[in-house]
Amino acid sequence: MRGRFITLEGGEGTGKSTQARHLAAWLRARGHTVVETREPGGSSGAEALRAVLVDAPVDGWDAVGEALLLSAARRDHLRHVIWPALRRGDWVVCDRFADSTLAYQGHGHGLAPETLEVLYELVAGPFGPDLTLVLDLDPNVGLMRARARGAVTRFEALDIAFHARVRLGFLDIAGHEPERCTVIAADGDEDTVTARTIKAVQARIEAWSADEGMLTGRVS
Amino acid sequence: MRGRFITLEGGEGTGKSTQARHLAAWLRARGHTVVETREPGGSSGAEALRAVLVDAPVDGWDAVGEALLLSAARRDHLRHVIWPALRRGDWVVCDRFADSTLAYQGHGHGLAPETLEVLYELVAGPFGPDLTLVLDLDPNVGLMRARARGAVTRFEALDIAFHARVRLGFLDIAGHEPERCTVIAADGDEDTVTARTIKAVQARIEAWSADEGMLTGRVS
Ligand SMILES: Nc1ncnc2c1ncn2[C@@H]1O[C@H](COP(=O)(O)OP(=O)(O)OP(=O)(O)O)[C@@H](O)[C@H]1O
Ligand SMILES: Nc1ncnc2c1ncn2[C@@H]1O[C@H](COP(=O)(O)OP(=O)(O)OP(=O)(O)O)[C@@H](O)[C@H]1O
Ligand SMILES: [Mg+2]
Ligand SMILES: [Mg+2]
Repeated sequence: MRGRFITLEGGEGTGKSTQARHLAAWLRARGHTVVETREPGGSSGAEALRAVLVDAPVDGWDAVGEALLLSAARRDHLRHVIWPALRRGDWVVCDRFADSTLAYQGHGHGLAPETLEVLYELVAGPFGPDLTLVLDLDPNVGLMRARARGAVTRFEALDIAFHARVRLGFLDIAGHEPERCTVIAADGDEDTVTARTIKAVQARIEAWSADEGMLTGRVS
Repeated sequence: MRGRFITLEGGEGTGKSTQARHLAAWLRARGHTVVETREPGGSSGAEALRAVLVDAPVDGWDAVGEALLLSAARRDHLRHVIWPALRRGDWVVCDRFADSTLAYQGHGHGLAPETLEVLYELVAGPFGPDLTLVLDLDPNVGLMRARARGAVTRFEALDIAFHARVRLGFLDIAGHEPERCTVIAADGDEDTVTARTIKAVQARIEAWSADEGMLTGRVS
C-alpha cells in the first residue's frame, strides 16, 4: 500500500509525541517505511523558524506573525520533507500540523478561520492529511502532564481559558471533517491510549485497502 | 511636523542603502528624529528571519515560502520598530519595504499580485508608506555596482531577465500609485542621485506642510 500522511493533533500534553512514536513503530512493524516528523519544524529551514519562535519573548510574535511564520515553516517542511517522502511511497507521521494553527492562532487567539484557510491554501493547495488523530483531553490534565515533563513553553504559559478554547477548536475541526479526523480519548494510561490510537489507524487502513481494491488480512 | 514613513525601493545596487543614509542625515539636519531601518529585518525577530533566508541554499525557499517569511518579518518589524517610532512622532526611513516583495516575488518570480495583497493586508491593514522613492536603473549597471561591492547574494545570482522583470515591476507599482511613489533616475554619480532624492523629498514635505496648514520656509 502506498504511504499515507497521518497527523496527530491536540492540546498541550495530550500525548501526541508519545503516540506518534508508537504509531510509527507499529507501521514499521507492518513493513512500511515511515518518516516521523513534527511541526513547527521538520525540515532544516522550518526548524530554524521554530527556534526563532521559541526563543522569542511571549509578546514577541502576535497571532498574525505566528500564523505567517508557521505557514512559511510548513511550506518548507512540505517541499523538503513531506512531499518527497510521499512521492517515494513512504508513510509520514507528523506530530502537529495545520489543525494546530487553526486551533491555537484561530480558536485560541481569535484569528479569522478564513484568513487561516487562505494561508493554508497558499502553502499546500488542495493537499492535506489522509488521517488526523485528535487526542482529546481535559487541558488541566494535559498541562499537568506537560509541566511534570519540565520547563514551561510559550503556550503552556497561557491561561486555562485559552487552552479550553483550543480543545474545543480541535473538536470543532474534527466534527466538520469526520472523514479525515478521528477523535481519540487521551485519558487513561499510555498503553490504553496507544491501543485506541492503533485501533483507529487499523480501521482506516482497512478502508484504504478496500478502496485500493486489495485484499488485506486483519492484523491480529 | 509629525514624522512620516519613507521607503526606498529598487533593484540590486540601485543605491537604496546609500540614499537612505543621505536622506536620514538630511532629515536629522532639519531637526527631525529619524529611525533608519531596513527590510528584510529591522527588528530582532525579523533580523533572525533575514538570517534564515540569507543562509539558505538558492532553492531552499521558493517564492511562496519567501513571501510568507518576508510577511512574518514585516509584521514583527512594524509592531516592534516602525509603528512605535511613528507613534512617538519620529520619522522612519526604510531601506526596502513591501514593494520589494511585490517586485521580486510577484513580478520577478510570478506570484499573483492578489496573493501578495492579501498577505500585506493581513500584515499591515490599511497602513503604508507616506512616500516611496523608487530608484530606477538599468539592472546591468546595478548588478555591476553590487558585484563590485563584494560577495554575490541570493538575488544577485539570478539571471538578467529576472532583474529586468523586477525593474519593470517597480515602475509598474510607481505608475499605479503616483501619489505615493516618486521614481528617481539612479544613474549618474552618488552626489547627483542624492540631489535628486533630496529634491523629491523636499517637494513632498512642502506638500505635507501645506496639508497640515502650517507655514514653512523653503529649505535653501
Ligand atoms: N496516557 C498518558 N498518561 C499519562 N502520561 C502520559 C500519557 N501519555 C503521555 N504521557 C506523558 O505526558 C507527557 C506529555 O506527553 P507528550 O509529550 O507525548 O504530549 P504532547 O501532546 O506531545 O505534548 P506537547 O503538546 O507539549 O508537545 C510526557 O511526559 C509523557 O510521557
Ligand atoms: N550613484 C552611484 N554611482 C556609482 N556607484 C554608486 C552610486 N550609489 C551607490 N553606489 C555604490 O554602488 C554600490 C551599491 O550601492 P547600495 O549598496 O547603496 O545599493 P543598494 O540598492 O542598497 O544595493 P542592494 O540592493 O544590494 O542592497 C555601493 O558600493 C555604493 O557605494
Ligand atoms: Mg509533543
Ligand atoms: Mg542595500
